[in-house]
Order: sequence, then structure tokens, then C-alpha cells
Amino acid sequence: MAHRTKLTVAYLGGSFHGWQRQRDRRTVQGELERALAVMTGGLEAAIVGAGRTDAGVHAAGQVAHLDLPSPIPPEGIVRGLNGLLPDEIRVRAAAQVSTDFHARRSARGKLYSYRARWRPSPLPWLGLRCAVVQPISDLRALARAAALLAGRHDLASFTVPEAADEPTVRTLHRVWIRGRRDGLDLHFVGDGFLRYQVRRMVGALLDVGRGQLAHADFERLLAEPRPGAAIRTAPARGLTLERVFYRGTSLLDELALDGRRHDDDR
Amino acid sequence: MAHRTKLTVAYLGGSFHGWQRQRDRRTVQGELERALAVMTGGLEAAIVGAGRTDAGVHAAGQVAHLDLPSPIPPEGIVRGLNGLLPDEIRVRAAAQVSTDFHARRSARGKLYSYRARWRPSPLPWLGLRCAVVQPISDLRALARAAALLAGRHDLASFTVPEAADEPTVRTLHRVWIRGRRDGLDLHFVGDGFLRYQVRRMVGALLDVGRGQLAHADFERLLAEPRPGAAIRTAPARGLTLERVFYRGTSLLDELALDGRRHDDDR
Repeated sequence: MAHRTKLTVAYLGGSFHGWQRQRDRRTVQGELERALAVMTGGLEAAIVGAGRTDAGVHAAGQVAHLDLPSPIPPEGIVRGLNGLLPDEIRVRAAAQVSTDFHARRSARGKLYSYRARWRPSPLPWLGLRCAVVQPISDLRALARAAALLAGRHDLASFTVPEAADEPTVRTLHRVWIRGRRDGLDLHFVGDGFLRYQVRRMVGALLDVGRGQLAHADFERLLAEPRPGAAIRTAPARGLTLERVFYRGTSLLDELALDGRRHDDDR
Repeated sequence: MAHRTKLTVAYLGGSFHGWQRQRDRRTVQGELERALAVMTGGLEAAIVGAGRTDAGVHAAGQVAHLDLPSPIPPEGIVRGLNGLLPDEIRVRAAAQVSTDFHARRSARGKLYSYRARWRPSPLPWLGLRCAVVQPISDLRALARAAALLAGRHDLASFTVPEAADEPTVRTLHRVWIRGRRDGLDLHFVGDGFLRYQVRRMVGALLDVGRGQLAHADFERLLAEPRPGAAIRTAPARGLTLERVFYRGTSLLDELALDGRRHDDDR
């Protein structure tokens, strides 16, 4: 009988070739599975993530599940894995869950944040999750285009042809922008995200804010969905998977309770 | 005629084998001199630091000077070097100074901070400058021992025999401790610091706080100075050179003006 455990995991993406296990490359899933094998004395369990973040993308609250042949107390799993993992990956929490729970299939939504800055931070321990980009000149135009994204749309233009065989109609529940001293944070809550979607949405929005992409052309990306449309992809370094939402809590309730957390600049 | 320039530099120590240039090893001085050579088309100028931080030790405000054969505007030096340096080193400021100024010999004092934590941060981008250590049980005992350090003393016990040929009588102008949620920050302002001094003072103080070193034995480290005394060296990761002080400003005025900066947890 499997003892299913849910993990909440944070990582600094710059140190890894993305989430997904790869032969001969350091990945988050690979490091977690390796730590689990050491901790359990050889158990080769697959760790199933809620989503596969790309190389360089960070997570504050990625969720994964795994099945253990015999129960280990959640606190022991957190300490055991963290003792074996590199500093750039931290298991924040573990919980025993029913085998109905599936990190990817049970997910109802995700919160991604993108931190764009016009110049590098003068302190190297800040800004590790921020991307330095060309500044914008028209925040109002950017916000007007961002408002078009909320709702249910075919978002194929914001992915690439290789990834467009999955359904491309998705709902963005909430999109919001916050000005920072030297840049902008963009937050997206949606029921699911296509490959490169957030980075391409951000790339296009920033170009609107720079006057390099007209509002009508941005509108057309939604009205005439076309995978691989010629839009800029914002750098991976600015992107963080903040949170994965599951049944039993309201997305917006969780956000309201936890609003401050998503605004931090670190 | 030399155009002397003062640099203020921040770095994350974990990525380097300390400040001092070494053949075949990545060091902060080495990276700065390499970037300078590229920026100037081959100038091989030595960059003189206020002090040599050890491998793993961070800086928020290390100071250095260099001589240029022809003037470059400070803003150009900051941008030029930052464009060539790794993310883990940032030039925070540059200024033209008179050739009387010497980063090491003109320094009047330094502020070092040590961030000790009882457990790792659950978010890997926090705590990069914190060391995880065994918790203490008696903060009052630790504070009582720390109070002995302020003033002028022979601090030879807090260095190692190899480093004890320089004068070991130094003044600690101010020592203060601040409790943090999961640990302790210890701050030291002094006129000069011996090799390993802060990490050995912190190692001994934490042992007092754990009841593993008696107050009387701590007192004896000062009363009977002995290089290489058997005391614990706290991990490099927790130590940051926050600031170097020069003539023309009062140390305590600067600290009062800038108090909040030294307390940040990031």
C-alpha cells in the first residue's frame, strides 16, 4: 500500500537545468529523487511535480508527490531531504495525503510572478529572482494590454508550436501589476499555463510598454491565436512559480490571506 | 599622473575563494582586475582592497582603490565593470579620490556582521549570508561575554599563530547583538580585525550561549592572550564585511544614520 506524500518545494532556478529529470544534467526533480534514494536507502521513487519549470525558472511553492512503501513522518521527510539537498533547493513542507491526490492532475491553478528590473541590484543577494530588461516608457499602455489577458482565451500565440498539441484554451483568473522602485512585478493566476506562456506574455507586454508593439497587435495575438507568433520571450531568471492551488480552498481566498507574500522583492 | 579611484564593492562569498588574487582560482580581486583589464583594453592595474576577506565571507561594502593612467568618469567605471563582472560581484559606487587615499592604510574601522541561524531558511534566496549553527540556550550568558569584548584588548586568542605576527592589540568600538526569529545577528565595529577574529569571537560566544564554554574561560581568552587558543571558528557563510570607515566621518554618526541597513535579514 502506497503512502502518498505531498511536498512543497522552493528552488533557485539558476542552479539547475529545469525541473525535469535529465541524464547527466543537474535538475530539481533529479536532485530530489537522488536525495530520496539516499534517505530511504535506495528507494527509486518517481517524484511527480505539479508542472515542469524551465531552466532558470524559480519556485517558491512548487508542489510534488511521491509514494513511499512505508510511512515516514512528514517532519522526518523535510529534515531528511533538506539535509541531503543542495542549498538551492529547500523542501518547505511535507504532508501525508490520500492516493486520490495527484500533484499535477489535482491542481486547480497556479500563481506565477515575473520580476522585471531596469537595472541590476547593487547587492548580489537581492535580485536573484529578477530579470534585467530594457525599461518601459508607457505603463498605462502595458496595463491596458495586460487587462485583455484576464478571462478565458485561446492562448496559443503565447506558446511555441512544439508545445501546442495540448489544449491551448485556458483561463487567467487574475492578472495584476505592481510598480517597483526600479522595475515592475507582474502576477498571473490561471488554471493552467502553456510552455513559455508567462515569459512570452511578459515579453509582449513589456514591448507594448516600450511602444514596440501596438495595442492592436497585442489584441490580435488573442483574437488570432497562432503558436510561435513572433513575440519576445522574457528571460527565465525573472520568473517564479509562487504557488499551486488545489481543491478545498478558494484561489482568491488564499490570495487575499497571503497577499503580502507575493510582493516581496527578494 | 595616476587617477586614483575608490570602489565600493559587494559580493556573495560562496562563489569565490576569498578576496585575494590566486593563480587558477576564482577570487573577487582576480575577477575585478580581469574586468578592469577588459574594460580598459589591457590595463593591468592592481586593485587594492581594504582587507582580505576569506573564502565564503561576503561583503556589502568592501572598499578598494586603483590607479588609472587616464580618467574615466565614475559612472562609466561602475557600468563598465558591472557589465563584465559575474552577478555575484557588484560595484556599488566609484569616486575619484586624491592619491593620499589608500583603501587599506586610510581605513579607520570596519563593521562586520555575523548572521547565525538555528535552521536553514525555507526559501533558498534568503539566508544566503546566514550560517546554520547549533542553537544556544542562554542568550544572557552570551551577551555578558560579548560585553567583555568592547574596548581595547590584546585579541591574539581570536586569531591563529600564522597570523599573529601583526599587532594583536585592537579596539572594538562597539559590539551588539540582535535576536532574530530563528537565530542571532552579531555586529562588531573595530579599528582593525585579525585573521579569523570575528569567526572565532562568534564561535566562542555561541559556545558560551550553549553552556559549552564558561564565562571565566571566555574572560581568560582576553586576559591571557594566546594565538590559536582552542576555540570554535564559526562558518564563513555567516560573515559579511558591511562597511569600511574612513577619515572625515564619525563612525558612530555613520552608524546612527545608517542603522537600519545592518539589521536586514537578507
